[in-house]
Amino acid sequence: MSEPGKPSQDLPTLKWTGEVDGHLELIDQTCLPGDLVIRDCRTVADVEQAICTLVVRGAPAIGIAAAYGVCLGLQAVELPSRAALFAQLDQVISQLAATRPTAVNLTWALERLRQAALALPSASDPQAIRQHLLAEARAIHDEDRRMCHAIGAYGAPLLAGLDGVLTHCNAGGLATAEFGTALAVIFATQRTQPKLRVFVDETRPLLQGSRLTAWELRQQGVDTTVICDSAAAHVMQAGLVQAVVTGADRIAANGDAANKIGTYGLAVAAAAHDIPFYIAAPSSTFDRSLSTGDQIPIEERAAAEVVGGWGRPTAPKDVAVYNPAFDVTPARLIRAIICEQGVIQPVTTAAIEQMFDCFEDI
Amino acid sequence: MSEPGKPSQDLPTLKWTGEVDGHLELIDQTCLPGDLVIRDCRTVADVEQAICTLVVRGAPAIGIAAAYGVCLGLQAVELPSRAALFAQLDQVISQLAATRPTAVNLTWALERLRQAALALPSASDPQAIRQHLLAEARAIHDEDRRMCHAIGAYGAPLLAGLDGVLTHCNAGGLATAEFGTALAVIFATQRTQPKLRVFVDETRPLLQGSRLTAWELRQQGVDTTVICDSAAAHVMQAGLVQAVVTGADRIAANGDAANKIGTYGLAVAAAAHDIPFYIAAPSSTFDRSLSTGDQIPIEERAAAEVVGGWGRPTAPKDVAVYNPAFDVTPARLIRAIICEQGVIQPVTTAAIEQMFDCFEDI
Repeated sequence: MSEPGKPSQDLPTLKWTGEVDGHLELIDQTCLPGDLVIRDCRTVADVEQAICTLVVRGAPAIGIAAAYGVCLGLQAVELPSRAALFAQLDQVISQLAATRPTAVNLTWALERLRQAALALPSASDPQAIRQHLLAEARAIHDEDRRMCHAIGAYGAPLLAGLDGVLTHCNAGGLATAEFGTALAVIFATQRTQPKLRVFVDETRPLLQGSRLTAWELRQQGVDTTVICDSAAAHVMQAGLVQAVVTGADRIAANGDAANKIGTYGLAVAAAAHDIPFYIAAPSSTFDRSLSTGDQIPIEERAAAEVVGGWGRPTAPKDVAVYNPAFDVTPARLIRAIICEQGVIQPVTTAAIEQMFDCFEDI
Repeated sequence: MSEPGKPSQDLPTLKWTGEVDGHLELIDQTCLPGDLVIRDCRTVADVEQAICTLVVRGAPAIGIAAAYGVCLGLQAVELPSRAALFAQLDQVISQLAATRPTAVNLTWALERLRQAALALPSASDPQAIRQHLLAEARAIHDEDRRMCHAIGAYGAPLLAGLDGVLTHCNAGGLATAEFGTALAVIFATQRTQPKLRVFVDETRPLLQGSRLTAWELRQQGVDTTVICDSAAAHVMQAGLVQAVVTGADRIAANGDAANKIGTYGLAVAAAAHDIPFYIAAPSSTFDRSLSTGDQIPIEERAAAEVVGGWGRPTAPKDVAVYNPAFDVTPARLIRAIICEQGVIQPVTTAAIEQMFDCFEDI
């Protein structure tokens, strides 16, 4: 345990230490901003637990963690045959995929590992398999770093000249390999507009905004103001922000986007004030198997997150609590989606298809 | 200290004990729902402190508390002349009026006490003055009780046949003499529609929704579900509520209404879902000296309410916090205002004037 303080680039959210017999290190995001605690994950169960309890969270980051989790799942087992490899892979992938239902980056990363295994020659020896899958996990991790930089570069022009911008939850370096998605856009903007003022929704129930986003922004010297989620519409009404930018956990083929609970209300309020609402997310966040957002599964989490507070009950003990972790913002409320390949605007099925066709041509 | 549990009618939010030499007893709302603590106020400073620290809160309730506070302010002083009486009254009224800037019921109640004093014959003896002003404070308290019942009766037809309704903050018995404003409407509706489901915004930063409203609703056997404030738009999108009803702290001549931070965002979301947004508030909440809500002063409260949590910092310690306690909902987003004299609908300057003209004719 040490004092948090150094810039987030020097404090990797996720780090694989060693080679095929190595392990995953994670910043325990539940302890921030008070304490900077590094958790070692040496088994699939460790990674499963870390994802379920939000030690690691954020759609891209849980995808990377899960990919490394697969590598851990191949360490301690005999792999006498191709059938044994795939039996083990199936088991590990199922276990990790079940941790959180909404973010699609998780299953996307796990499927990439499965595809990498399928591409191996039949006669591969166990160590070669392990090396190949670790290389794939590292590739996902590296691509995520480059993705963050590209999203920042593509998104910054959208915020040019603005005085204030609002963000929700944490779509920062802690949610990705580095810099983040929504926060990459803010960091890239702030480099040329140092007076940019960023309002951060605290993001109930788990306060990822005040605990994580405010911490990351302050480390980079960004002018940061924390507000209650319920103050966001008032901040828009007062003219303090001219754009909203958030991340996303899953985007349907038509552009409907699931993100942290509260995002939909922000998008509604932004529309009412004619303020553009942007989503910044990598292509791995798209789930084009779902035609609309109605089909995105919404994770419901424990009541204790809402009424358990910090050790003291904050509601009568027999009261019902509804705690959806995500909501879905319809594409019509999203001015643009900022991707690592460019800006999708307007947000339509056709524009998204066109973007993916371009990806595939590259 | 005792366990909370009995219905709120038997646990008066405010109670004057004794005669002119008596004192004010308040339920300490900062201790609910964990503990039921009664605070005695024996001086003006005690009442001032209780209002500032939200031991007593809710626009009607702070008006009543302030009226009794004036009575306390006349107890311990000599009143050798009419001039001495008004000097003391001015001092006490100024002190109490400064406690919270947004709710107009506070200054309305204090002005009623001043007017009652002005109406006294010049030759009144000090004890007669004290008795007269205590009678006026009690009249305000009694009128508030009747007001709650009338608002319930006028409002219930607006919720007839609905499955679910959403409320924000606490506009219940704890915010008034009895039953509340928004909650009076809900209680009156629930009497004939026992299956009515009430969603309660927890209401950050001080959780009056989960701590106080959920407690009151559960005591009356209402089907109650607590949500994070940021989940409200999702609850509307999911079709779980067909109306929103809240209280108000000050309503301008044109119907623009100040209420707990987050109310404006709810009204915006309700409009986007074509769900009626109602305000329930007594006539004492109107400030017709202000033509629009732009002129309503908005109280800004301490950062610690947002990031102090329950004893543990929830944001980096050097981060800025913006903590407005109220916001203003424009009249165009308010389907109706439910008053003790009837329902104002549509909400326009003319309709409000007409309602007040009718009051004055009675």
